[in-house]
Order: sequence, then structure tokens, then C-alpha cells
Amino acid sequence: MPLFNRVTIVGLGLMGGSLGMALKRRRLAKTVVGLSRTPATLRRAKRRGAIDVGTTDAAHAVRGADLVMLATPVDTIIPQARRLARHMKPGSILTDVGSTKIRIVAALERSMPTGVAFVGGHPLAGAEARGIEAADAHLYDGAICIVTPTPHTNRAALRRVEQLWRPLVGRVVRMSPREHDRALASTSHLPHVLAACLVRAARPRDLSTAAPSFREMTRLAKSDPDLWDDIFFTNQRLLLGAMDQFSRQWRALRAMLAGSRRAAFRRALAQAKRTRDAIQDR
Amino acid sequence: MPLFNRVTIVGLGLMGGSLGMALKRRRLAKTVVGLSRTPATLRRAKRRGAIDVGTTDAAHAVRGADLVMLATPVDTIIPQARRLARHMKPGSILTDVGSTKIRIVAALERSMPTGVAFVGGHPLAGAEARGIEAADAHLYDGAICIVTPTPHTNRAALRRVEQLWRPLVGRVVRMSPREHDRALASTSHLPHVLAACLVRAARPRDLSTAAPSFREMTRLAKSDPDLWDDIFFTNQRLLLGAMDQFSRQWRALRAMLAGSRRAAFRRALAQAKRTRDAIQDR
Repeated sequence: MPLFNRVTIVGLGLMGGSLGMALKRRRLAKTVVGLSRTPATLRRAKRRGAIDVGTTDAAHAVRGADLVMLATPVDTIIPQARRLARHMKPGSILTDVGSTKIRIVAALERSMPTGVAFVGGHPLAGAEARGIEAADAHLYDGAICIVTPTPHTNRAALRRVEQLWRPLVGRVVRMSPREHDRALASTSHLPHVLAACLVRAARPRDLSTAAPSFREMTRLAKSDPDLWDDIFFTNQRLLLGAMDQFSRQWRALRAMLAGSRRAAFRRALAQAKRTRDAIQDR
Repeated sequence: MPLFNRVTIVGLGLMGGSLGMALKRRRLAKTVVGLSRTPATLRRAKRRGAIDVGTTDAAHAVRGADLVMLATPVDTIIPQARRLARHMKPGSILTDVGSTKIRIVAALERSMPTGVAFVGGHPLAGAEARGIEAADAHLYDGAICIVTPTPHTNRAALRRVEQLWRPLVGRVVRMSPREHDRALASTSHLPHVLAACLVRAARPRDLSTAAPSFREMTRLAKSDPDLWDDIFFTNQRLLLGAMDQFSRQWRALRAMLAGSRRAAFRRALAQAKRTRDAIQDR
């Protein structure tokens, strides 16, 4: 018996489309419903096996769903959730894949209609490509999915959301929304800003012979500016903090290099290597 | 008929070992001789098909060689080259794979014994792993190899070095030593420093749930500190210049974020994306 009778995915881009494909592949939902503004996207999602049924009618899409997954850009999640929750049935769950969590969880968790529970989530997976054509049934394989409960979170709903993700990812981790946004500021948003700066700092003439290390360190700059601009600004304060933490290390290393303090510089590199070697690559 | 009768590779680590394997695979040299201080490395190199003959005797290794390739760490190349050149035959070529070129070319090009020509080179390939066990016949496939002639470079020797690399890499490019070191400061040395800073800026508790983007942006921090410390300090001035160029972009983006200048921030991201999208990934 599938884990869910009816799951509705709102937004059929890379994240939502890939989730649909993974749910279908693992037979975790009897019916996957897709909601999109664009009929062509619904047709493509159906052709790619990401959804069973597609609709452009929001009320129709979520009525009868046991779980509704919001997979639209981060700054659309709050208004979307409010609009959709009105049509959801008692006992159903609303959750999301948004890249920042403080605002979304604060805005939604305690404003749901009676009987509807909101649970914040964020699977750490992605690619610079967008849209249903880039969707991949294996996008979430081995990934970490963070769920962000608070003292107000409905525990049964939280467990159901964890049950949904557990078969699809490598590990499900609980964090407070604040812990999540702080961690992601350092480990995701900051790297994206660095990649953009690195591209902007290079002389055009050097790009045609760029070393492989440069291509690797700037791949994130291919990400969609509209999507990431929203993420950065919804996490503005914590991202500024992460940038300043980086700046302190940066200035320290620059001073060692400028001052020809080789032993200190080498120790700093060695410490970074030890720390990085301890992180498991997949 | 092979391109070279006898090629000697000095240093059988990742770079030298991989070159030997590629030369053998493509039958570009009748005999590949390996020089290493460590007999066990010579045995491993032979077992891996990187060399035909191995020796720990420097004079013996280079005597009779048509081309000698220095593939030892960047700060050992100058003294090694001077020691070895004395034993090389007239008409032979000494070249290297060192990651910085100004000092090496300046020190060596005009100080070779009569009849021996030095040509600076640098194939843009590598990995964070070291040693003959990490060597790979395909390490250089598709890579860019930079050769760094000056007005003093023997043109026939330059063409021979280009002939050696051309079948092994994707593209051979000529640059002056200064152009090379400036370009690599921005596109290789700077990214390595950034990766180390990014690791050092992260809170330890965030590392266990680090997003894939963080792992990608810090992989370079796994590089060997001794090797890279040498590279950074032999290119100290130009690397400081590249770091300062990065700092200007960094401060500009930080100011846009702090000042909530969203339109400017988004334009900067979009410009970085356009630039990065134009770089071909392999």
C-alpha cells in the first residue's frame, strides 16, 4: 500500500518534477497531482512520468490531497500556501522545499486553517538547470533533507513528512528554522556569492584558458539569478554574517601571504585540509 | 615511428606518472625513463606502465634523453634543472610542468649548457590526490597545456615540446611567463585560497550537513598544503593582485546586499551568469 493516497506537487520545475518522478518510481503515492500555471508544463510533467494528473486549478489540485508539497521559488511560497490551505481537507499536511526557512515557517505554521498542518522542509539537492526538462528521478538520491520543526509543529505531520523523504534521500535531519538558515548561509548561500565574485573578478582574456579548478569553483554562478536573489535576500542578515566570517579568514590569509609568513600560511592550509578531508564526499 | 626516441620523466607523482602512462599509451616515445629518489616509486611506476626503465641515478637518467620532463614540486624545479642539464646531450630539450613560470623560465632559459634548450610548460590538469598510485593515463585528456616561450626560447625546441603535448591534451596555448602567472593567479591560485577560507569560515557543526555546493566549492582545500604553499609563494605578488581584484567584487556585492539594493545585486548575478555560461565545460 502506498504511503500516501494523494500527493499534490505545486510547481513542476527541477525540484517538484524530480520529486514527482521519485515518488512515482518508489510508488510512495497512489496518485500524484501536479499544479502549474502552464498547461505545457503539465503535459511535459505527465510525459516525463512526474505526475498522474495535472491541473491549472489551484482549489481543484489540493482538494482531497493528503499532502501538498510547495516547490515554487522561495518568495512565492508564503502567498501560495495561504491561498491553497483554504481548500485543503482536515488532517492534511502542507510542506515545502524552500531554501530558507525562518520566514516561511514563522508566516505559515501558526496560520493554517484548523486541521491543516504546516511542516517546513528543504532537501539539499539541486542543479543549475531549471524546469521540468531538467527533472531527474535520482536528484534526491543520497541527499540530506532538512525538516525544520518548532515547538508548534504538529508531531504527527512532522513524522509523515519525514516518512515521505526518508526513502528518497540519504538522510533526514531535524533543525530549527534558525539553525537551518544559519547553516545554509555558510554552506550554500555564501558559496554561491563567492562563485559570482570569482567570475566577476577574472579578466575576460583569462576565461578562455581557465583551469579546471576555476570552472569547478564558478559552476554555481550559472544558477538562476532570479531564484538566488530571492534566497539571498530572504536570508539577508545571516548571509551577511557568513560573509563577514569568511572575510575574517580571507584577511588573515591575505596578511600571511603579504607578510611572507609561510609557516603560518601552510598551517592554515593544513588545517583547512584536515577539516575538509573529514567531510564525506559522495 | 615514435615522436621521441628517449624521454626522461623526473618525478613520478600524479603529473609525471600520468604523463608516462599517456606517452606509453600513445606510443609517443620509444623509451620512457623514470627518475625518482625512491626505488619503490620506480617499481610502482613500472608496474603501472608509466615507465620502461627506472633509476635513482640522475646523471644516468638524463644521459641520452632527447627530452627531459621535470615533474617535481615547483620549488625544486630550478635546482633540479641545473643539476640535470650538465649531463644532457647536445640537441636535447629540458621542459617542465611547474604551476608558476616567471621564476623558472627566468632562472633556466638562459643558463642551460650549450646545445640544451629549456622550454617552460604547464598542463592545466591535476587532482587533489598525489603520487604514482593516483596517476591516470587520461589525466591530460582534453586539458589545456600552456607553453611559455620568450624571445630567447629556441623555436625548434618549443615546437618539439608542443608536438609532445598536442596528442595528449585538448589544446596547446602559448603565453608569456608573465601572462601565464597572472592568468593562473586568477583562475587557479585564487580559487585554491578561496576554498581554504571557505572551510575555515564554516562552523564545525555545519559541516556534517554541508550542502553539495559547499563540498564542490571546498574540494580544492583537500590539495596538498606543501605543494600549494610553494605555488602561492612563487606567485606571491600576482596572487595578492588577484586577491585584491576579488576583494573589490566581494565588497561591492556585500554592499548591495547590506543596502538591500536588489536590482543591482540581481544585475551582478546575471552578469556573472552570462560570463560563466560562455565558458565551455567539458
